[in-house]
Amino acid sequence: MNPHPADLLARASRIRLACFDVDGTLTNGDLTYDADGRESKTFNVQDGLGLRLLEDNGIAVALITARESLAVVARGRDLKLSHVHTAVKDKAACLRGICETLGIGTDEAAHIGDDLHDLPALAIVGLAVAPANAHAWVASRVHWCTPSRGGAGAGRELCDLILQARGLEAAVLGRFGAT
Amino acid sequence: MNPHPADLLARASRIRLACFDVDGTLTNGDLTYDADGRESKTFNVQDGLGLRLLEDNGIAVALITARESLAVVARGRDLKLSHVHTAVKDKAACLRGICETLGIGTDEAAHIGDDLHDLPALAIVGLAVAPANAHAWVASRVHWCTPSRGGAGAGRELCDLILQARGLEAAVLGRFGAT
Amino acid sequence: MNPHPADLLARASRIRLACFDVDGTLTNGDLTYDADGRESKTFNVQDGLGLRLLEDNGIAVALITARESLAVVARGRDLKLSHVHTAVKDKAACLRGICETLGIGTDEAAHIGDDLHDLPALAIVGLAVAPANAHAWVASRVHWCTPSRGGAGAGRELCDLILQARGLEAAVLGRFGAT
Amino acid sequence: MNPHPADLLARASRIRLACFDVDGTLTNGDLTYDADGRESKTFNVQDGLGLRLLEDNGIAVALITARESLAVVARGRDLKLSHVHTAVKDKAACLRGICETLGIGTDEAAHIGDDLHDLPALAIVGLAVAPANAHAWVASRVHWCTPSRGGAGAGRELCDLILQARGLEAAVLGRFGAT
Repeated sequence: MNPHPADLLARASRIRLACFDVDGTLTNGDLTYDADGRESKTFNVQDGLGLRLLEDNGIAVALITARESLAVVARGRDLKLSHVHTAVKDKAACLRGICETLGIGTDEAAHIGDDLHDLPALAIVGLAVAPANAHAWVASRVHWCTPSRGGAGAGRELCDLILQARGLEAAVLGRFGAT
Repeated sequence: MNPHPADLLARASRIRLACFDVDGTLTNGDLTYDADGRESKTFNVQDGLGLRLLEDNGIAVALITARESLAVVARGRDLKLSHVHTAVKDKAACLRGICETLGIGTDEAAHIGDDLHDLPALAIVGLAVAPANAHAWVASRVHWCTPSRGGAGAGRELCDLILQARGLEAAVLGRFGAT
Repeated sequence: MNPHPADLLARASRIRLACFDVDGTLTNGDLTYDADGRESKTFNVQDGLGLRLLEDNGIAVALITARESLAVVARGRDLKLSHVHTAVKDKAACLRGICETLGIGTDEAAHIGDDLHDLPALAIVGLAVAPANAHAWVASRVHWCTPSRGGAGAGRELCDLILQARGLEAAVLGRFGAT
Repeated sequence: MNPHPADLLARASRIRLACFDVDGTLTNGDLTYDADGRESKTFNVQDGLGLRLLEDNGIAVALITARESLAVVARGRDLKLSHVHTAVKDKAACLRGICETLGIGTDEAAHIGDDLHDLPALAIVGLAVAPANAHAWVASRVHWCTPSRGGAGAGRELCDLILQARGLEAAVLGRFGAT
């Protein structure tokens, strides 16, 4: 793995809130409809541990999705995340609201998303990220594109960047008995 | 991304109706049967936004599938699409019917499909397209093969081609607050 | 696509029964268990058309699987296949039985499978095939490995080989209005 | 396939218990939530045969997962595995317990896992393995990384390594009528 550029690490070191789009970012963009037309969604187990590691180390995590989805609510509950917002029409407004609640600036927030709905939120945060599968019009408007695609590591890579930038690697490894 | 050839852009600039095969085109061709033998289907979130962008910009969208499927009906309803046709025996006849309803010629229609059932429709439209995973006998009979596979970007790539050919990129970006 | 070797085409030209293993051959090997422990299975739409084209052109098709599975039964019913055998302990015996019913020799049968359970059937047929994802001990004991993996084209490639070897390409294309 | 290094074969030849993490190891890490928020999991059929071959040849198999999951219980029952442990907080303690039950040392156990929760178990076994998709902090702390990813062959590759190291290939092939 190449080391991250200093500017990216500097941005990541200031993050106190990490916001994640869901479809195409924490999933691979698949929307499965069953025979009754009901929808399911597929998350990634490694992303889940990354989200927990952020919260356990004092960085707030938010899921923000434009779709209405019980699957997202269930995933947020499983991971005991504090901020889960579904059916969001305006992601930038939602993100600003969370920042106000936390008493931080949007420059202390990160957002990762893959498509046009994410552009307004990406435009206001201190760290704007897109997964490898992001639409070209989004990928060209962020500070960093993760090496991995949504649902296949992109989420965890953002978590790891923030943990590394904040110097938390040794603490995390220690919790799992490793050095 | 390589620029599109002038002939392809000319064809795309005339399109007022875009027809999409479902299995293998808006999905990766997977047909999932549950323990009761009931079928589910997996669509892609980025394709969905592309279909909406077409309709929001005055290009009609149709889903045309040979299979009976409540999942397709549900997906069409979610995206508020005007033309959703399932259990279609003759896709060319179906496509001609939609053109008559809209008062346009088949040369103003595009069709994208991956297998032999799509050949009659592909033969009569102004813009015939196949996803990267199309059967060889189909891929050799279209004006354009998308770089991406069905269910993994092929649908959105056709939407983007039409938007670009009709000069709608700036309007779309503007709607999402970007320039 | 490289042309097939003459020996392979000769074997394929004699086939009157094509037998397909299911898991790992007509699927990618995924076995999905839901929250109640019930199992679903994912087939490929292009494989399905290939199986129908064989039967419509006088080549019998059989699905033979060691697992008990309503999903396989449902898939066979959808495709109106004549021979669907689940929970098969001895695939070679099952295949011999179908040959007897049809009054043909096992040298006029093809079998495609990906794992050790398929070895006895592969050992007795005129055309033994493995998908690209087959276990190494199987791949080294067949006449042909398909370029594609199970659930992603392997089944259709065997169908196409047989159709080509029996000189049926033009007839198939004609049925779909193409030349 | 490159031959395995002598040290790896030596470690594998001593294994009498093989422990498998589930998510990301026997699956690709996908966690699917349906419209009611209930979870399903996808296993691989070739892994399943590998696990059975181990047990049929006298090497005990254990599934050890941190998550609560009926899908894992169902998969274990289908494969008639003796040791299936879900909702495990401390995998190393669980693994030690199985070794005590079997009357073997942890140096006679193998463990394969993809993420930080597996580090304590990986640290105490005679053969520590990670699938190709393992987190970098895990991959750098094992004796062997399998060529394949979790849910796509990693599990079977560990089974095959153990069978080969213990000289059981011919016996396995013979059971399926091959030489």
